[in-house]
Amino acid sequence: MAETMSPEEEFAQRWRKFADVSPYNRELGLLPHSVRPDWCVLKVDYKDGLVGDPNTRVLHGGVITALLDAAFGFSIFVKMPQFRPMATLDLRIDYLRPATPDKAVLGGAVCYKLTPDLAFVRGCAYHESPDDPIATAVGIYMFTSGSTVIQNEERPR
Amino acid sequence: MAETMSPEEEFAQRWRKFADVSPYNRELGLLPHSVRPDWCVLKVDYKDGLVGDPNTRVLHGGVITALLDAAFGFSIFVKMPQFRPMATLDLRIDYLRPATPDKAVLGGAVCYKLTPDLAFVRGCAYHESPDDPIATAVGIYMFTSGSTVIQNEERPR
Amino acid sequence: MAETMSPEEEFAQRWRKFADVSPYNRELGLLPHSVRPDWCVLKVDYKDGLVGDPNTRVLHGGVITALLDAAFGFSIFVKMPQFRPMATLDLRIDYLRPATPDKAVLGGAVCYKLTPDLAFVRGCAYHESPDDPIATAVGIYMFTSGSTVIQNEERPR
Amino acid sequence: MAETMSPEEEFAQRWRKFADVSPYNRELGLLPHSVRPDWCVLKVDYKDGLVGDPNTRVLHGGVITALLDAAFGFSIFVKMPQFRPMATLDLRIDYLRPATPDKAVLGGAVCYKLTPDLAFVRGCAYHESPDDPIATAVGIYMFTSGSTVIQNEERPR
Repeated sequence: MAETMSPEEEFAQRWRKFADVSPYNRELGLLPHSVRPDWCVLKVDYKDGLVGDPNTRVLHGGVITALLDAAFGFSIFVKMPQFRPMATLDLRIDYLRPATPDKAVLGGAVCYKLTPDLAFVRGCAYHESPDDPIATAVGIYMFTSGSTVIQNEERPR
Repeated sequence: MAETMSPEEEFAQRWRKFADVSPYNRELGLLPHSVRPDWCVLKVDYKDGLVGDPNTRVLHGGVITALLDAAFGFSIFVKMPQFRPMATLDLRIDYLRPATPDKAVLGGAVCYKLTPDLAFVRGCAYHESPDDPIATAVGIYMFTSGSTVIQNEERPR
Repeated sequence: MAETMSPEEEFAQRWRKFADVSPYNRELGLLPHSVRPDWCVLKVDYKDGLVGDPNTRVLHGGVITALLDAAFGFSIFVKMPQFRPMATLDLRIDYLRPATPDKAVLGGAVCYKLTPDLAFVRGCAYHESPDDPIATAVGIYMFTSGSTVIQNEERPR
Repeated sequence: MAETMSPEEEFAQRWRKFADVSPYNRELGLLPHSVRPDWCVLKVDYKDGLVGDPNTRVLHGGVITALLDAAFGFSIFVKMPQFRPMATLDLRIDYLRPATPDKAVLGGAVCYKLTPDLAFVRGCAYHESPDDPIATAVGIYMFTSGSTVIQNEERPR
């Protein structure tokens, strides 16, 4: 059955399973944008309710952080044959410049090292290109012993 | 006129001015809890829409981060005679354990060093006591040259 | 035999065992200063060979980092009945002001959370008081499965 | 006169000026390895005096940190027409695996964003390839108002 799905459909389905796990991610309106094993991208559209400062109309830093945190989780998910419950161990975010009002923000991430216990990730938030980032981030996630929530049948090519 | 306000009223008013700056903080439902110059505490009530994982019903890490980011900003604000526009330069958050479902989370912070350009802060998120933290965090904020948004007439005692 | 040792002698002996593990710590000249379960302090004396910038004669940031890294390890060591091999998983250091030339620098640390796998620590470097820090730091250490190097018979009171 | 120097000689000269600023970097034996505007590499040779644990003979984490800190400074230096005094504002280092005994460690870095006040850098330590890192790091440096120590006449091509 999976063969009849286009890669785009497969990806969208995989993201829905991942995103559906998190009510908060749905509430923020995080959307899948593109995926490769070495660069998973989510998107958040500009909305007035996500603004940090009404004078500048710049998105709240917490939205950028939540976007990157979700992209981190997704980038680990696509590297594994099966989803394993995990928890953010720590995050560091550097904010380089304000997001531009009215523009969607992309959050891209790669899991660059996997051990049996840990996943190391890095990524950035941007409008057009990761080479002109709004924020950069690194983090470590730890696999926990909780029950498996979802299966990840397909891996990105 | 200010003399006729109780310290609690003054604090609540100061927080409203600060919180009103951020639509996203309002959307998260961040509430003032208590304030001292060396420990400013905000609160976020448990809500299903803020859950990260419906299996465990644990609050999303992004909510904890947004709570701490707001508490950091507030802890800087209460140290200054006048609000100066500032931007988060970087944040590091360590997650020690999951938040307990159905419980409110408190986010406490202190600005432990102020320079003309920078504010250094630290804090933690917890249920009952900062000695049993859910997450700890440190950050640096940079004052920007934007226009002043609000006045901070009173300082906490 | 241990009963005939003063607490100071016991502490000095414990530190020697810990410090002897690391040739680099010896080369830097890291010395024990004081220890409590919740605040372990090491010291590095000012030496021309540890200077970062000869114009200002300020100690190199790398020395401060190594001092804090060692104090972190020691603060975990004193919390455990037996030494377990561990590795630094990550560190964050914030530099608040330059060290003063010709003055020794103290590095204090506390392990504020221990799990079976991880130790969470925080600390700071200072001259006179931790309330006027030169640098602050947080880190996470992971226990590894290597063989036990030293025994820690006594715990600080 | 500069035209008669090979690019390699120019680079070595530039590094000597930079490295000579720091007695501690000389003491560690940090050597120039290669330079491009987007990837500056320093090297530290394996020496018994830099070992952290004599059982495993692994280099001390503080040496890796000092190597990366120096590479960060150098990567900023090569991006600027003239050296400006700067201070490390903060650093985060993630340790992915132990360094292999008897092998030199390379530390590569890029300054990926420069503002009038700040330089944002990232890099990693490795033996053969940055794709198999021993440690990764990010940091922010702040330009200070101190006097200029050295001139950087040439910029890498």
